[in-house]
Amino acid sequence: MSTAATSTLSDRLAEFQSAYDELKARGLKLDLTRGKPAADQLALSDAMLSLPGEGVFTDAAGTDLRNYGGPSGLPELRAIFSDALQVPVPQLLALGNSSLTLMHDVLTFAMLHGVPGSERPWGREETVSFLCPVPGYDRHFAITEALGVRMIPVPLNEDGPDIAAVKAAIAVDPTIKGIWCVPVYSNPTGDVYSPEVARELVSLDAADDFRIFWDNAYAVHHITDWRPEPIDILSLAAEAGHPDRVFVFGSTSKVTYAGSGVAFFGSSVENVQWFSRWAAFQSIGPDKLNQLRHVALLQSPEGVAAHMEKHRALIAPKFAAVQEVFGRRLSPFGVGSWTDPKGGYFVTLTVSPGVAKRAIALAAGAGIAITPAGSTHPYLDDPEDAVIRIAPTFPTIEDLNAGLEGFCTALLLAEAEKAAAA
Amino acid sequence: MSTAATSTLSDRLAEFQSAYDELKARGLKLDLTRGKPAADQLALSDAMLSLPGEGVFTDAAGTDLRNYGGPSGLPELRAIFSDALQVPVPQLLALGNSSLTLMHDVLTFAMLHGVPGSERPWGREETVSFLCPVPGYDRHFAITEALGVRMIPVPLNEDGPDIAAVKAAIAVDPTIKGIWCVPVYSNPTGDVYSPEVARELVSLDAADDFRIFWDNAYAVHHITDWRPEPIDILSLAAEAGHPDRVFVFGSTSKVTYAGSGVAFFGSSVENVQWFSRWAAFQSIGPDKLNQLRHVALLQSPEGVAAHMEKHRALIAPKFAAVQEVFGRRLSPFGVGSWTDPKGGYFVTLTVSPGVAKRAIALAAGAGIAITPAGSTHPYLDDPEDAVIRIAPTFPTIEDLNAGLEGFCTALLLAEAEKAAAA
Repeated sequence: MSTAATSTLSDRLAEFQSAYDELKARGLKLDLTRGKPAADQLALSDAMLSLPGEGVFTDAAGTDLRNYGGPSGLPELRAIFSDALQVPVPQLLALGNSSLTLMHDVLTFAMLHGVPGSERPWGREETVSFLCPVPGYDRHFAITEALGVRMIPVPLNEDGPDIAAVKAAIAVDPTIKGIWCVPVYSNPTGDVYSPEVARELVSLDAADDFRIFWDNAYAVHHITDWRPEPIDILSLAAEAGHPDRVFVFGSTSKVTYAGSGVAFFGSSVENVQWFSRWAAFQSIGPDKLNQLRHVALLQSPEGVAAHMEKHRALIAPKFAAVQEVFGRRLSPFGVGSWTDPKGGYFVTLTVSPGVAKRAIALAAGAGIAITPAGSTHPYLDDPEDAVIRIAPTFPTIEDLNAGLEGFCTALLLAEAEKAAAA
Repeated sequence: MSTAATSTLSDRLAEFQSAYDELKARGLKLDLTRGKPAADQLALSDAMLSLPGEGVFTDAAGTDLRNYGGPSGLPELRAIFSDALQVPVPQLLALGNSSLTLMHDVLTFAMLHGVPGSERPWGREETVSFLCPVPGYDRHFAITEALGVRMIPVPLNEDGPDIAAVKAAIAVDPTIKGIWCVPVYSNPTGDVYSPEVARELVSLDAADDFRIFWDNAYAVHHITDWRPEPIDILSLAAEAGHPDRVFVFGSTSKVTYAGSGVAFFGSSVENVQWFSRWAAFQSIGPDKLNQLRHVALLQSPEGVAAHMEKHRALIAPKFAAVQEVFGRRLSPFGVGSWTDPKGGYFVTLTVSPGVAKRAIALAAGAGIAITPAGSTHPYLDDPEDAVIRIAPTFPTIEDLNAGLEGFCTALLLAEAEKAAAA
């Protein structure tokens, strides 16, 4: 921030304080914390409430989907998402209601049994470490920590993880076995990986059992006309001589229903066999009727795209509101910088070092809940205390605007406090 | 078997051989292997294909069930199954589509993190052992083996695990941390635990973190008018001074749909907190709409009971067919003894030592698939080679009768071969 802006800010401390006091007096109760679809988005899938419909319970091959079995999931549904996730149908499994569960379970299987290429179960290693591009997704970091895996932050650039930092970390640390990636509309910046960065990741000179956890959560979640260049990460990995390097995850949680969607796991033939071997002890098969329900609603890749356009119509105005309010309220004071994602569920706001926690606490004091500072970093530790995740989708546009305005009031006060103390 | 019967059998070897040759020539293809509901049973729940129905997506508290959250499951559904599973609603979680998954995951959490009362994660112990009442359920044994837990067979009596054998094992082996139990209509014998045996189990002088995996899979699956005495296992455990000793599992897999049911986990308050803590890393919540679908179909405990009467009407004749065919075909030669369950999904047939594998191989040779010999024992090892699991529910009554007749033909030949060789 320029000195001019700083002096402007500190000059205005009293003004910002009184604006904040007024805000507080309004007794708001607004929640901008989580990346959840709003009710009107969920309603787009309400045909599913009566699907698959009377007498409909078999797949194209005539299998009775009401009974046990079918551990790979419904082929028709896998075909619909094969292109979006860039995984061939035979290597793409359609499973339970949550890709988070799949990521947790895959890492658990790795800890207990190792993966193809492991000398021993990861849990038998003295230390296992994962690279965590930051800012990143709190639930990834929570799984990693819960399973006793050490986390090493690396910067996330606009085109993906900072490859120089990744290479430097791997060069000195043989305990590194994995990296978390959200390649499209990354949580929380909205950044999109470039094919070049993807190629670098699959080409890394890393451990034989190094795995990229490729969480393609927002593959079809566009809010502009722009489309990311598709990255066929499994083929890139094979070309790089590391065919088993990538685990692909995805789900319909933000396509259909957030609690009642379908999750996908895709990988090389050998990795899929490995996963299926261990998953067979855990499950006789997923809820195939829910998968049939999804096929009936979405029908085809084009059906998915058309469905996602309806989501876009509902949430693009919310992302626009973030840009409008931040631009109008923060830019005049040179406060903050923020991403302008072309899809996904989040905007990342970067404030002055040491200000994020204070701004969020002030917002909370005025009844506006923002994702806790630090959530975007391993161990909840943002060393700069500067990154704030904004989740605009869940509130109504009115609540969102009120929340953003109030949050800017809180943030300006926090920045002015800092400038005044300097 | 008496010497008279033995001589009769060996006298008839040629006759049985020619009967078997005729059977083989018929080229049957029948499958009596798995405890799956038949299509007419699944059809009892077909209202669910259009449920919860247009505009129905909230619970009694008004929560939108289409979104993330609600990790304990729908309170209304938990209330319906609380009495059948003998777990108070606040301690009963309604979760995913499979109790097998819950058992796998609970044992996994124990291996990775330990349970309340553990000194360390079970996976950090040199050896962890489980008592496995035999005959028992192959998928329990498979989970146990996959997670590296040693299995120790103990006899299953008509009123539950042989308590003297259980006590003797625990007295000499401090590595024993658990026991598998199917207390009602046990898989595969149909035996029902007595309250006295249950009381002994919760009172055992075992490790602080000893756990009873109480898989109450068939709690409401009656095929006669008789009802087992309900066992409030959690209260018994608390009374015995071991409130955290029992993990209760159950599901609607054989109430509604085998692939699209709802699974339950119940335990002490402390164990439920422990489970929920680790499950929170794995899941943001179960498919609550499927739970709502179940509430709409089943409505109440009385609704469940009425629904189960419809199952009974369909499968009791199949269990009767087993008794009729075995009685008519085997009793005249003193071959075999078999259970006559009052519920559940299986009948256990015990044949002469060393005959089970041969009989099943002969049946397979004639196109009749029977659950592999040994499946009822840890490590697939029935030391007597004498126990055979019969699963009568899935085939039509015509196929079941044909399969049973053919299997008896194969078994009589196997017994005659043994008698002739003696």
